[in-house]
Amino acid sequence: MYDGIIQDLIDEFGRLPGIGPKSAQRIAFHILQTQNFDVTRLAELLTDVRERVRFCEVCGNITEQERCAICRDPRRDDTLICVVEEPKDVVAIERTRQFRGLYHVLGGAISPIDGIGPDDLSIPQLMQRLASGEVQEVILATDPNLEGEATAAYLSRLLTSIEVPVSRLASGLPVGGDLEFADEVTLGRAFEGRRQV
Amino acid sequence: MYDGIIQDLIDEFGRLPGIGPKSAQRIAFHILQTQNFDVTRLAELLTDVRERVRFCEVCGNITEQERCAICRDPRRDDTLICVVEEPKDVVAIERTRQFRGLYHVLGGAISPIDGIGPDDLSIPQLMQRLASGEVQEVILATDPNLEGEATAAYLSRLLTSIEVPVSRLASGLPVGGDLEFADEVTLGRAFEGRRQV
Repeated sequence: MYDGIIQDLIDEFGRLPGIGPKSAQRIAFHILQTQNFDVTRLAELLTDVRERVRFCEVCGNITEQERCAICRDPRRDDTLICVVEEPKDVVAIERTRQFRGLYHVLGGAISPIDGIGPDDLSIPQLMQRLASGEVQEVILATDPNLEGEATAAYLSRLLTSIEVPVSRLASGLPVGGDLEFADEVTLGRAFEGRRQV
Repeated sequence: MYDGIIQDLIDEFGRLPGIGPKSAQRIAFHILQTQNFDVTRLAELLTDVRERVRFCEVCGNITEQERCAICRDPRRDDTLICVVEEPKDVVAIERTRQFRGLYHVLGGAISPIDGIGPDDLSIPQLMQRLASGEVQEVILATDPNLEGEATAAYLSRLLTSIEVPVSRLASGLPVGGDLEFADEVTLGRAFEGRRQV
């Protein structure tokens, strides 16, 4: 639709997740017309980010050093390991300020339909961390969906061999939500997991 | 929330129009994790686009040459000029394939609240193009909102001095829409502009 490079830029933005052709066009024109938008900075960040960001050699979280900020922090409780799928999940849990232990980032979840099996995740590294015998509890915090549940079930079976207590995050009604709008699976889980008050 | 450069990239994407913090985070992780996403290409396009893109010296449309593709095309009817606010509007009108004349891109609309007056738009250039006397009709295709209507009203008064026929795009019900959902101003315009069948 447009002359050369503008269309190229629109197409390239359109390849990003959650950006449709209309948004891509709006972004391209914003970059073109907003004088104080620093194109050079965004361009530099894009090229730098792949080079500088790596995965923590202990837990698999993202970091710019050998170990991530959480693994380096001596105040964290190293007897607790919370297993998550992605680095984003670490950020979500950190935001709650409820967990003071360490993490283990699997790098995904078991999903036969996508061709992802246990061997594609950092499960051997997790077993190695647990081998020292210092860990008192493993909290499985994979997503509460099909793949996440399958991964949690697989791990809990695997972990019975090393006799470490394993827990799973509670499923139930989201706080602030309306009971009537909850799907039946969530509502069912909320009944199963009911607690005496 | 994240270590250094990843947060910088998220922040930078968050400054683009229509991208909230959640989308910015998703995009940054997509770039980080998708191996076949070409970061270098997006980075190069970003730095190139500002250098290579300029405004057509005749009509103000965007182009990579001195004149835009439409002004260079000898098959276009140079006795018709369609006045629009932005280069995006040119693309929208081109998509209809209804108009075979030339354009004049004002670079915005009169908006006292944003401090944009007639002097900030390419109105002198428009008057100069019309001075040759070759133009048979000026079509005002500014947006059908407050600023666009004010700009069209200003231009139509200005153009009475040079005795060229001036028209304005029709306002009315959008095709494919529901009458009951039309706002009262649009419905009122549709009545005003009704045509005998």
